[in-house]
Amino acid sequence: MSVYTIVERDQLNAFLSHYNLGTLISYQGINAGIVNTNYFVTTQAGEWVLTLFEQLSCEELPYFLKLMAYLAEHQVPCPHPLADETNCYLRQLNGKPAALFERILCGQAVEQPTLTQCQILGTALGHFHIISPHFPLYRPNEHGPHWWKITAERVLPYLNTAEATLLREELRFQTQYQHMDLPRGVIHADLFRDNALFEGDKLCGILDFYYACNDVLLYDLAITINDWCTFPDGRLDEQRVQILFASYCEQRPLTAFEHEVWPVMLRAAALRFWLSRLQDWYFPRPGELTHTKNPVEFREILLSHINS
Amino acid sequence: MSVYTIVERDQLNAFLSHYNLGTLISYQGINAGIVNTNYFVTTQAGEWVLTLFEQLSCEELPYFLKLMAYLAEHQVPCPHPLADETNCYLRQLNGKPAALFERILCGQAVEQPTLTQCQILGTALGHFHIISPHFPLYRPNEHGPHWWKITAERVLPYLNTAEATLLREELRFQTQYQHMDLPRGVIHADLFRDNALFEGDKLCGILDFYYACNDVLLYDLAITINDWCTFPDGRLDEQRVQILFASYCEQRPLTAFEHEVWPVMLRAAALRFWLSRLQDWYFPRPGELTHTKNPVEFREILLSHINS
Repeated sequence: MSVYTIVERDQLNAFLSHYNLGTLISYQGINAGIVNTNYFVTTQAGEWVLTLFEQLSCEELPYFLKLMAYLAEHQVPCPHPLADETNCYLRQLNGKPAALFERILCGQAVEQPTLTQCQILGTALGHFHIISPHFPLYRPNEHGPHWWKITAERVLPYLNTAEATLLREELRFQTQYQHMDLPRGVIHADLFRDNALFEGDKLCGILDFYYACNDVLLYDLAITINDWCTFPDGRLDEQRVQILFASYCEQRPLTAFEHEVWPVMLRAAALRFWLSRLQDWYFPRPGELTHTKNPVEFREILLSHINS
Repeated sequence: MSVYTIVERDQLNAFLSHYNLGTLISYQGINAGIVNTNYFVTTQAGEWVLTLFEQLSCEELPYFLKLMAYLAEHQVPCPHPLADETNCYLRQLNGKPAALFERILCGQAVEQPTLTQCQILGTALGHFHIISPHFPLYRPNEHGPHWWKITAERVLPYLNTAEATLLREELRFQTQYQHMDLPRGVIHADLFRDNALFEGDKLCGILDFYYACNDVLLYDLAITINDWCTFPDGRLDEQRVQILFASYCEQRPLTAFEHEVWPVMLRAAALRFWLSRLQDWYFPRPGELTHTKNPVEFREILLSHINS
């Protein structure tokens, strides 16, 4: 349970006066997102999303906002931030950093992606990874192998013997593959099904770039496939995997070495989310309980990769 | 992703004028709850929670509000609804049914309940079940054995062979135990960890009575124990089970027959939530994706009951 910031009509009018969007017609709160407050805003000029950043700091935000602008300008469907009269993406509203985005006007998250939707998502991610290495800003991955190690040490005392063994052996296994020379660039790092909007077979938008960072591109594909192409019991759906993988490779053909280490990446991506769920489970941040997901899901995904 | 209702200061002032709570000082949105809009409200008279009901209808609400008032007046710590000048709990605000509650001023949901917290919760639930049979209104359980059957038929085509067999056999097993003559009353029916607020060892409040209904009391205890006393891998933590069960029985001693059918109840309660998670997974309601929980968790709980 977190609180969100109330924006009153007068405040919103004052904020909007720094953009050239005509008069405010209406606005409505959006009950989504754990860390930001969001409103749909309608003005004479169109439909927008107003985001107030409740946790991310002003120092971190330019990377994300500039990245979204860069991607939107390079045909990745995602929320395009609006520059204000001084050509900045970021303003203050009600004491919080705030930004305005073009509203994505169609689509919903899908629970059970179809083969066609997986194909389309693979194409979009491949295209993303073609252009993302040229984005000029840099942000390290805060959830990389060093974080894996620290987090494993925190959660190990809480695991049963079988799980503790699995975790220790997977960390040992992954250590052999660190520092590999693989193509890198900006990755989304959290392209789960709830971060993409589909209207039928149309991908309307990719959302939530607030974990984006510079890392191995193939790792991003593995994160995506682990979520989009698994059954609830953790097994990969080979049909969905093949079509997403193939459409991705059409955009960005993999090197022979990338093909070789692909099974390792799937395990690394499962490990990373098993660890963060274990951490959220055993060390919940205040007020975040209702969003905590059971870690068993990613343990099952990891196990099914190891056994396949 | 759902939208919430924006309440402007003038509207809130008008609404509050029907209660005797002094002048409005401040208010703040609460980012919790999937189906209601909630605000913390501070007036000269104290701290309140304003709830706008986005989905529940005006016909259903009096049962829940009267139940909460009844429980609060009988020493169950829960949000106490306020009656307005006409002695009604329910008003309209912004076109939605709305109610005002005394704010529970301490406590948070706990991820990892301690033994003492389990003991305290057992006492509270036992006390609840002592007084709840005397509550004069009646509401059937909409998620009972008939719903199990219909829901199983909807989801069975999506399950793998092992899961389908497990589900069919569990339904067959439970059929033998229907229509048992067990003590009944109002049950919470959803007393998961995120619906209780603890400050250390103090239980500050039980929340979210919108699944409450008339049913078998022992079933409510099983629902509660399945969530409060399991490890993330689905196994029961016998220590937590024993202490919660014992403190419950101190308030409401079980009959010999209740003791006998206890293992059946644990399985029934696991089945009920496995089914609803399967349904939410395969038939998500629009906009609800981000709150969907993986069904595998309750399959594991059910399996661990069967195998114990």
